[in-house]
Amino acid sequence: MLPAEIIKKKRNGQELSEKEINDFILGYTQGSIPDYQMSALLMAIYFKGMTTQETLSLTKTMLHSGIVVDTSSIPGFKVDKHSTGGVGDKTSLILGPVVAACGVYVPMISGRGLGHTGGTLDKLESIPGFNTQQSLEKFISITQEIGTCFIGQTKDICPADKKIYALRDVTATVESLPLICASIMSKKIAEGIDGLVLDVKFGSGAFMKTTQDAITLAKNLMAIGQGYGKKVVAMITSMEQPLGRFAGNALEVFECVEIMKGRQFIGADGVDLYEDTRELSLRLSAEMIHLSGKTKNLDEAYKLASDALSSGRALKVFENMCGKQSGNLSLLPQAQFKHEVRALSSGYMSSMQVEKIGVAGLELKAGRAKTDDIIDPVSGVEFHKKIGHAVKSGDVIYTLHGNDKSLLEKAAELLQKTYEISATPLPTEKQHTLIKEVFYKV
Amino acid sequence: MLPAEIIKKKRNGQELSEKEINDFILGYTQGSIPDYQMSALLMAIYFKGMTTQETLSLTKTMLHSGIVVDTSSIPGFKVDKHSTGGVGDKTSLILGPVVAACGVYVPMISGRGLGHTGGTLDKLESIPGFNTQQSLEKFISITQEIGTCFIGQTKDICPADKKIYALRDVTATVESLPLICASIMSKKIAEGIDGLVLDVKFGSGAFMKTTQDAITLAKNLMAIGQGYGKKVVAMITSMEQPLGRFAGNALEVFECVEIMKGRQFIGADGVDLYEDTRELSLRLSAEMIHLSGKTKNLDEAYKLASDALSSGRALKVFENMCGKQSGNLSLLPQAQFKHEVRALSSGYMSSMQVEKIGVAGLELKAGRAKTDDIIDPVSGVEFHKKIGHAVKSGDVIYTLHGNDKSLLEKAAELLQKTYEISATPLPTEKQHTLIKEVFYKV
Repeated sequence: MLPAEIIKKKRNGQELSEKEINDFILGYTQGSIPDYQMSALLMAIYFKGMTTQETLSLTKTMLHSGIVVDTSSIPGFKVDKHSTGGVGDKTSLILGPVVAACGVYVPMISGRGLGHTGGTLDKLESIPGFNTQQSLEKFISITQEIGTCFIGQTKDICPADKKIYALRDVTATVESLPLICASIMSKKIAEGIDGLVLDVKFGSGAFMKTTQDAITLAKNLMAIGQGYGKKVVAMITSMEQPLGRFAGNALEVFECVEIMKGRQFIGADGVDLYEDTRELSLRLSAEMIHLSGKTKNLDEAYKLASDALSSGRALKVFENMCGKQSGNLSLLPQAQFKHEVRALSSGYMSSMQVEKIGVAGLELKAGRAKTDDIIDPVSGVEFHKKIGHAVKSGDVIYTLHGNDKSLLEKAAELLQKTYEISATPLPTEKQHTLIKEVFYKV
Repeated sequence: MLPAEIIKKKRNGQELSEKEINDFILGYTQGSIPDYQMSALLMAIYFKGMTTQETLSLTKTMLHSGIVVDTSSIPGFKVDKHSTGGVGDKTSLILGPVVAACGVYVPMISGRGLGHTGGTLDKLESIPGFNTQQSLEKFISITQEIGTCFIGQTKDICPADKKIYALRDVTATVESLPLICASIMSKKIAEGIDGLVLDVKFGSGAFMKTTQDAITLAKNLMAIGQGYGKKVVAMITSMEQPLGRFAGNALEVFECVEIMKGRQFIGADGVDLYEDTRELSLRLSAEMIHLSGKTKNLDEAYKLASDALSSGRALKVFENMCGKQSGNLSLLPQAQFKHEVRALSSGYMSSMQVEKIGVAGLELKAGRAKTDDIIDPVSGVEFHKKIGHAVKSGDVIYTLHGNDKSLLEKAAELLQKTYEISATPLPTEKQHTLIKEVFYKV
């Protein structure tokens, strides 16, 4: 079938065969099908969607456009976590070491931040010297030795996804459920893992704004993973407020190290501002450990994770990993300047527009608006108040960190418009819930 | 606005401004916006459509991407006809000379055939020596001298449309009403005409299968033409059966010359098989003449046209035009072989699948499946029976003409499946009607 006929078939809402998807995607990856036909097909998929079978075929084609990491030399269960992204979402840096400290391997291939959401690679690279561009051999050997290793996408893994994603980014075809699912799952399956825990976020800072949409995404992702014989769990978690105390690369590493040192940070309301980062990291770790079959139940897995954290064993793994990947944690940089954003009225924090907070972070160069933007690792935002907290006029809501005073002021203006204060305490049903639901079956 | 944001805006169903459309289309034509963004926008337009205002803006941008022919030196009303295409649709070759013979100028820039529909240029080029690639100066001078001239698209006219159409052809984005309207009307307005008669076809051989869809297309085209201050009339005509006696390039020229010589061709049923070609040509000619303001009413215009035809004056114009464009009518080629397709049962011809007839013609190389296919000018199909005609088992339904016997047999097989015979005569409401409706206002 000619490429134009495959586009037409999808445009008309018909199901594409595995062969048609395979021919088109590999033809595009190898250069025999041009960009302009791929982008037309992507837009047709945006409007007409894909069946489960089509999404599986697309995932399979993208997966086999490159290599699947051979993890057979690692003697044990290999598990990873994937988050759909948010602001201050730094759990990977904790759960990798925690799960590894419990004897389950975590070979993690991560991405960079784009738009309002951060990326694990950028966070790690704020540690001076940290090298995320390891060879796959080194990736395997570090994982085997330390229990976990974090690297970036290599050109050998899912080259089709890499080429297609770059095209989607400039043709307004990113926001398509089957394309998102195939992109995520092909890369994760390529890691050679046995299990995967999905952290699918909902809320004002998430890709999926509603719980229902997050569940739909979660179930689609699970179906693909399980179609590949992987053990997959999906946790539906809130991005109605930023996670933890900081958003910003070096600041988030600092927060994770503090948590792994067993420290708390008690804010003005007597609440530990590290609590949600710690709790979500442990809950995800527990699912990852339990997936491996090491534990009788989830409580036992949670206790194992909790012990690994409180005993300092997770920190030791993290430090070892930094050492193996040439990162010098003691040189973690800090910003020269701070700038406070204060409440203009009194009451209770009732809502936060998290995507807008992320966009304000872009002003500080804490993230990338475009893929080729340069990040300033020290800049970011510190959160003093979360949903439900009491606020007095003049209280600090955010502290901005950065090396460029003029950018701090500009971002502060944006941040002033990212939260709402209500006169009365929030009713119970509007209180913030970090973890909404966990799915073990599609 | 970035190109990707314009694509996203359309994808989300919002109306694009004239500036956005202009920037995108000219950016694409000039090469600063790549093919892959244009094809994504085209697919988004396919799904989300365009408002009348957007379609007007697109037409305007495409029109002004090139030159508008300066016809000011031609002293009088300039009118053209555009047909949405079909099988055996050869009226241009008659109405150009007829209308010119009545003192109204017909400067006609035509296209080539693609898929099951034929193209005026291909028909004329079956006349040995006929040169459709005249300069615009020559185009004007021949029109002025003879009253009509037929040329092909030049690179100076609507380059944006040319580039976009080539892209639409390979990205399954041809079948979009606003894109079709803007493409047709930008090229027609670029001819420098004062009036335009649209022959919008419906039925099994037309782009629009139903009368209602044809009317929608007609009204959209009229709205653009009238938005440009042109006089526009739209005739809704049947493509439920092929037009006239022949489909095929040299065969159609032969039919037109026969009609201009005043000849008939009486088939087995005592019906003149040239009748519908002649009648539609005269009806369209009458509209064109009446648009010029030369006549008090349409009947008077029809009489003028009819006289021009029967007197041989139209033939004289056609012969002069061929002479001016280096065509030698006396050398019109004929096929070496014929092959008959005969009825397998008796009754009445009840329906014809005209698109399939056109596709069978492609087998004979009477048309192009792809833009770079080579046409054999002598091949084609002759029609002996039309809808409602009595048929006896063994009667000839089609005669295939061609120089390659093996192709004739293959096409004959396809043609055997392109018609239906009913046992009883067709009820009145199912009889074929050539001209359904004429619109003078949107």
